[in-house]
Amino acid sequence: MADTGRSSRTSLFGYLASAVDAARKAGEIIRNGFHQNKHVEHKGAVDLVTETDKACEELIFNHLKQLYPTHKFIGEETTAAFGTTELTDEPTWIVDPLDGTTNFVHGFPFVCVSIGLTIGKIPTIGVVYNPIIDELFTGVHGKGAFLNEKPIKASSQTDLMTALLATEAGTKRDKLTIDATTQRINSLLFKVRSLRMCGSCALDLCGIACGRLDAFYEVGFGGPWDVAGGAVIVREAGGVIFDPSGGDFDITSQRVAASNPFLKDELVAALVEKE
Amino acid sequence: MADTGRSSRTSLFGYLASAVDAARKAGEIIRNGFHQNKHVEHKGAVDLVTETDKACEELIFNHLKQLYPTHKFIGEETTAAFGTTELTDEPTWIVDPLDGTTNFVHGFPFVCVSIGLTIGKIPTIGVVYNPIIDELFTGVHGKGAFLNEKPIKASSQTDLMTALLATEAGTKRDKLTIDATTQRINSLLFKVRSLRMCGSCALDLCGIACGRLDAFYEVGFGGPWDVAGGAVIVREAGGVIFDPSGGDFDITSQRVAASNPFLKDELVAALVEKE
Repeated sequence: MADTGRSSRTSLFGYLASAVDAARKAGEIIRNGFHQNKHVEHKGAVDLVTETDKACEELIFNHLKQLYPTHKFIGEETTAAFGTTELTDEPTWIVDPLDGTTNFVHGFPFVCVSIGLTIGKIPTIGVVYNPIIDELFTGVHGKGAFLNEKPIKASSQTDLMTALLATEAGTKRDKLTIDATTQRINSLLFKVRSLRMCGSCALDLCGIACGRLDAFYEVGFGGPWDVAGGAVIVREAGGVIFDPSGGDFDITSQRVAASNPFLKDELVAALVEKE
Repeated sequence: MADTGRSSRTSLFGYLASAVDAARKAGEIIRNGFHQNKHVEHKGAVDLVTETDKACEELIFNHLKQLYPTHKFIGEETTAAFGTTELTDEPTWIVDPLDGTTNFVHGFPFVCVSIGLTIGKIPTIGVVYNPIIDELFTGVHGKGAFLNEKPIKASSQTDLMTALLATEAGTKRDKLTIDATTQRINSLLFKVRSLRMCGSCALDLCGIACGRLDAFYEVGFGGPWDVAGGAVIVREAGGVIFDPSGGDFDITSQRVAASNPFLKDELVAALVEKE
């Protein structure tokens, strides 16, 4: 006879529940570090972010590996240590234990845990949790997207001119990257109502999903862990996620754009102009 | 014999208490509108922001005028209706009933009430309240700055290269303004760790005060109501507020920069380069 406890853990909602458990536990570590952080000097804060990042990834991977020993795992920390892990069709947990590390260091309250599960390379489960303001975004392929268990949907803006756009300055500081970044910003400022840069790619995607933001793009971010969780949440909220060129979203490409469906073409046109 | 209830209302802490009362009441209106907003189409949201703005200003002015009938009042809404009100040496309440109107329209949770009191043109009382995430920033000239009644202080960063900078894209969309805005961003991205744009000048100033942000500048914002409250809070938290040229801060100039004291010279040098 099947172990019902275990078998319920291997349904889509079982995966979701496991990811939420892991995200909440990691969130507690982040929250403690975030508040402790206010009492340390800057250098101490940089060490603290590294410790927190590692502790959270270990906790999340241990939690999920125990439940799903045959699944694959891709994480920012392990990838940094062991090189790129190829994404296969196997069920694969893709984890950013602490997205928004600069915000964490500075005590800026936009930080989160991001957990995604791909099956057949399709983002299937997404959990993004901001433990500082206690916002839990979840999505399950075909089953909707939620913020703190209430259904969310992308905005209904149809005109880029009245849209709220988000992007990020990234971490690269070479002239080519910065010039390209600011040229895109320059071009887009003529075409949108305003611009937000809040320092977390995963939370930007969730902003699209709950309609706080109408459009978002970022190129050159860290890796699939920044987008794996958010991708499900955006799609399940009725948003679209795509390559800034307008092509299909590739979770491994370090390029992402997202919006409600009405704004996609206008956003792509504006971005392609500056490619 | 003096009315003690009344006389306690005319001490610095009495002014603060009155401003906090008014900010919390206005905050309730904003919070209701913000959540209601999620259920209206975009055009409805734009009408709602105007209604909310007016209702909050009326509430705050009525509250304060009843307590301080001889004081002067400057508000965004009344200035828009009746033209500029000159700042005099009289005790003057300078109010932005809803800072971050674009965020309000889009449901982005960075909105606030900002109330400042100048006496002899010196910003003396500052109250900035974000009702969505329930953060109340307060400052009294010579008496410290607080977030939800806990003392706050500006960051201890000494190097612009590891600083978190904030600015805003503003609302002007002419080529001269946008080019100047993005040229400054381009220049500064080489010199800081990262950039945040969150859509509320008053909350940016409070970010400096509580050390979440290390440096901030904005030129061309709406008026003194955007900075009157935050100026006190920054200074009382050990931060500095100044003109982006490095000169003295002028509350009526629509130009502001703020940082911890260590970063001022580096920030000014970087900004002046692009003037």
